[in-house]
Amino acid sequence: MPFVNIKVTGGNEAPSAEQKAQLIKGVTDLLVKVLGKNPATTVVVIEEVEMDNWGIEGKTVTEIRSGK
Amino acid sequence: MPFVNIKVTGGNEAPSAEQKAQLIKGVTDLLVKVLGKNPATTVVVIEEVEMDNWGIEGKTVTEIRSGK
Amino acid sequence: MPFVNIKVTGGNEAPSAEQKAQLIKGVTDLLVKVLGKNPATTVVVIEEVEMDNWGIEGKTVTEIRSGK
Amino acid sequence: MPFVNIKVTGGNEAPSAEQKAQLIKGVTDLLVKVLGKNPATTVVVIEEVEMDNWGIEGKTVTEIRSGK
Amino acid sequence: MPFVNIKVTGGNEAPSAEQKAQLIKGVTDLLVKVLGKNPATTVVVIEEVEMDNWGIEGKTVTEIRSGK
Amino acid sequence: MPFVNIKVTGGNEAPSAEQKAQLIKGVTDLLVKVLGKNPATTVVVIEEVEMDNWGIEGKTVTEIRSGK
Repeated sequence: MPFVNIKVTGGNEAPSAEQKAQLIKGVTDLLVKVLGKNPATTVVVIEEVEMDNWGIEGKTVTEIRSGK
Repeated sequence: MPFVNIKVTGGNEAPSAEQKAQLIKGVTDLLVKVLGKNPATTVVVIEEVEMDNWGIEGKTVTEIRSGK
Repeated sequence: MPFVNIKVTGGNEAPSAEQKAQLIKGVTDLLVKVLGKNPATTVVVIEEVEMDNWGIEGKTVTEIRSGK
Repeated sequence: MPFVNIKVTGGNEAPSAEQKAQLIKGVTDLLVKVLGKNPATTVVVIEEVEMDNWGIEGKTVTEIRSGK
Repeated sequence: MPFVNIKVTGGNEAPSAEQKAQLIKGVTDLLVKVLGKNPATTVVVIEEVEMDNWGIEGKTVTEIRSGK
Repeated sequence: MPFVNIKVTGGNEAPSAEQKAQLIKGVTDLLVKVLGKNPATTVVVIEEVEMDNWGIEGKTVTEIRSGK
């Protein structure tokens, strides 16, 4: 019954459909293995966040990637 | 003062504007009725998640809908 | 397959177990009625937030309730 | 190490890239000043929500802005 | 730079400190392996939700576990 | 109408009531100044996360603080 939300940068850093499928499978398997959770009700939601909208160190990722 | 976040699948399963208005009205009414909350500060945010980004049973909804 | 997160004030404004059961049933029924969702995979999580930790109008609810 | 999520209305109310950078810098500075947090691991994510998907007072922002 | 939020049931189903450390390590390793993310800025937050506050199928987990 | 969620470590790193009030006031003022938002409907929720439940670099904060 767990719920997992994964936020990553999108735009030209966005994961492919194949990578998203691997993340969903991998996280679900981990919850089954570590906690014995039921995969049938384990929900994983991936959110892709634009680089203007993600900040770290007080800067947007857009600023960081452009070397500002 | 409650805050409600509703995540549903988007893409060709996305709710219409009319359905979203019904969800927002319905959830707000429920919080007023059950908990006596003030609707003026009850906030509801609906998020539509692409089917590649939603997983259950370790599979993406894209995989599930395609019968994989 | 929807996921709903409801945040409300806790402490002496916390909902009772019975009220929480009503919210969960009410939101699930709404998603079934409006969007035709499957209740078996509709997940609702209620979070109770202490009044010192909830702010509106730039004040904590503790401040507001005490008439500050 | 804090994580901050800011949800605002998007569409024609969406913040500009410059405003998003100001929000990210401002929130990070606040966490450094008030709590002494390390900016290097302070993460801020801004989410822009369509006006059909944001509700308050039981209405969507689309309805409110159109004077319904 | 990813941010992962894992919600699981708490109370007498709460994970142990050791299990939480395994989840955090496992999810971080997965993001490094699948997406090449930097572990130094990969944040994982686990939330334990009381069984009265988690609903599925329109029932609280408390109701489900008691066979109602 | 913005909604802000701030997650910080709790336990013996938990902010005081006074610090939480400063965060709520500071974030609300920032949203008023940068985006012209209405403080009356600006909601801020602070969540304190136990150090066993917060991970970075694949380790829990408990492990990091103990020098492991």
